[in-house]
Amino acid sequence: MDRTAVDTEGAWFDPEHMAALRRQLPIAYVDIVPVRTDVDGQVSQVGLLLRASGAGRIVRSIVSGRILVHETIREAISRHVEKDLGPMALPRIPVSPVPFTVAEYFPTPGLSPFHDPRQHAISLAYIVPVDGETAPQEDALDLGWFDVSELTEDGVLAELEGGHDVIVRRALAHAGVC
Amino acid sequence: MDRTAVDTEGAWFDPEHMAALRRQLPIAYVDIVPVRTDVDGQVSQVGLLLRASGAGRIVRSIVSGRILVHETIREAISRHVEKDLGPMALPRIPVSPVPFTVAEYFPTPGLSPFHDPRQHAISLAYIVPVDGETAPQEDALDLGWFDVSELTEDGVLAELEGGHDVIVRRALAHAGVC
Amino acid sequence: MDRTAVDTEGAWFDPEHMAALRRQLPIAYVDIVPVRTDVDGQVSQVGLLLRASGAGRIVRSIVSGRILVHETIREAISRHVEKDLGPMALPRIPVSPVPFTVAEYFPTPGLSPFHDPRQHAISLAYIVPVDGETAPQEDALDLGWFDVSELTEDGVLAELEGGHDVIVRRALAHAGVC
Amino acid sequence: MDRTAVDTEGAWFDPEHMAALRRQLPIAYVDIVPVRTDVDGQVSQVGLLLRASGAGRIVRSIVSGRILVHETIREAISRHVEKDLGPMALPRIPVSPVPFTVAEYFPTPGLSPFHDPRQHAISLAYIVPVDGETAPQEDALDLGWFDVSELTEDGVLAELEGGHDVIVRRALAHAGVC
Repeated sequence: MDRTAVDTEGAWFDPEHMAALRRQLPIAYVDIVPVRTDVDGQVSQVGLLLRASGAGRIVRSIVSGRILVHETIREAISRHVEKDLGPMALPRIPVSPVPFTVAEYFPTPGLSPFHDPRQHAISLAYIVPVDGETAPQEDALDLGWFDVSELTEDGVLAELEGGHDVIVRRALAHAGVC
Repeated sequence: MDRTAVDTEGAWFDPEHMAALRRQLPIAYVDIVPVRTDVDGQVSQVGLLLRASGAGRIVRSIVSGRILVHETIREAISRHVEKDLGPMALPRIPVSPVPFTVAEYFPTPGLSPFHDPRQHAISLAYIVPVDGETAPQEDALDLGWFDVSELTEDGVLAELEGGHDVIVRRALAHAGVC
Repeated sequence: MDRTAVDTEGAWFDPEHMAALRRQLPIAYVDIVPVRTDVDGQVSQVGLLLRASGAGRIVRSIVSGRILVHETIREAISRHVEKDLGPMALPRIPVSPVPFTVAEYFPTPGLSPFHDPRQHAISLAYIVPVDGETAPQEDALDLGWFDVSELTEDGVLAELEGGHDVIVRRALAHAGVC
Repeated sequence: MDRTAVDTEGAWFDPEHMAALRRQLPIAYVDIVPVRTDVDGQVSQVGLLLRASGAGRIVRSIVSGRILVHETIREAISRHVEKDLGPMALPRIPVSPVPFTVAEYFPTPGLSPFHDPRQHAISLAYIVPVDGETAPQEDALDLGWFDVSELTEDGVLAELEGGHDVIVRRALAHAGVC
């Protein structure tokens, strides 16, 4: 599809244009913590992506991305889960639009627990149970499922950056598992 | 199973004993609003039971019941959903223990929107999406699934008693559908 | 202060530029339901502004406005409360960043309960108890405090537009007063 | 006041009677995390009581106690705050009855993060900002206010027992401060 045509829709932009927008407005995001649950609905595992960071390091991350203009939050959650976990993930999109936390990412480190050098992003964070098959997609090296104890005791959370570890901790607190 | 043996477990009691307990302590309950969701996770329908009330009238109600001593909230939700919707309901027990509202039922009408002539009950209310087959169980005459518009516009909520209509309204508000 | 200087900060823009941004990104908002509470913390009254709408009609509204780039949600809440209720309102900014609902305003009516002809806005909605003196500010004709029963029974909510009535209803549901 | 008269009200009981009730029903509780907030409403400090535990050790705890029969949750919060922090604490009772977490205390350790050797308690947990003067009351040795960093980095939370440390962590997660 022609990029110019897409630009007319007001959703996808070339990098320079997007960088300019990011200096002018806070950008609306969704942060998604994918989880596996046991038969009682309790969170048993958390899914984390492994990616090459821009700085050449390997980092873990949760599912995260922009809400496009004219897109609903539910559509954005579905789109980002499919983009990162694949089309067979069978996510259970939350019944309520109320996020378990709101993360405010600032380009200046230290203003909040969340940091994004590119932008001021306001991210609505949701726990999304996933019942189907998942696989790492194009820009991810791996997708791992970690028991709650591995995350909190074995230091896996320390491999997350920009405050994603804080998001996972708040998700586990909200879910009543730690 | 022998009733006396069960009493020793401290969970089930004969009616006079339960009535005596109800005068001494607030009773912990769960109120469950069963829902059907569309592909985006949005609530599309609410399930309501049809029962004969003690007063000989026919009333609608949500799924509701006591939390037993030594029982977890998740176990209580599962048990009451199975008791009222049948064993094939496939409920998605919520990921978080945080209820969408807390209903305080008092035996004196008017102290709160919730009234139960038998007791002071403190009820944690949850929305529970149900994916499987449901059928009315022993003490119910029927189990109906209603579109959100039928509930709010066609007066179905007026057939609920004791404040169950308020619980359903709060559930729909929390779910972002009205 | 010079408008051009402010533009460099990336926050305030001339109308044509803002209209262009609104076609390209969802705009982050806060919606604030100002309330008076009784001694037990229960909501007793809701504050509503009276304004001239663009279409020449008189409408009521809640406090609402944009989150600026590099502004925290808490700063945005404080700024909009002061702008609409005056500098002596003494708002109690919520302890948690979790909103009671998220309203998705679309320029096309009917896509959601919320409508804004100017833009796609994603609004985090908060209940803000106000303990001080309030007065209508520049662009408001009046600021009225309404008992909960006046809102729900006397039709005051019908004077709200764009879905602000739905926001107030959800606030009252979350607060456990209806 | 005569104890027998009070017993008729069904609220206060002699220890043997209360112990018998505790074997038969889950007991409804409130857990309260008292906090000081800064001008933006953000949590800056948490208040913890210092008490002699039954086992002769000195432990820290949050404010916690039973909901009496016919008592509202708001009344129970007010009563326990006054009992533990004194009559000049000026607590801001939460606008919403929705707790930030629900703690399930079991007499058997390990069934959940929460343990109470006396009973199965179901506790609704609330963050309560306190604006006034506080002082330790009869059964407390001290009342200390701790900065968030002292709690999480300096090991103060390790002095809490029965899962109260988990309650405080979840409160800080919900409040967006860690």
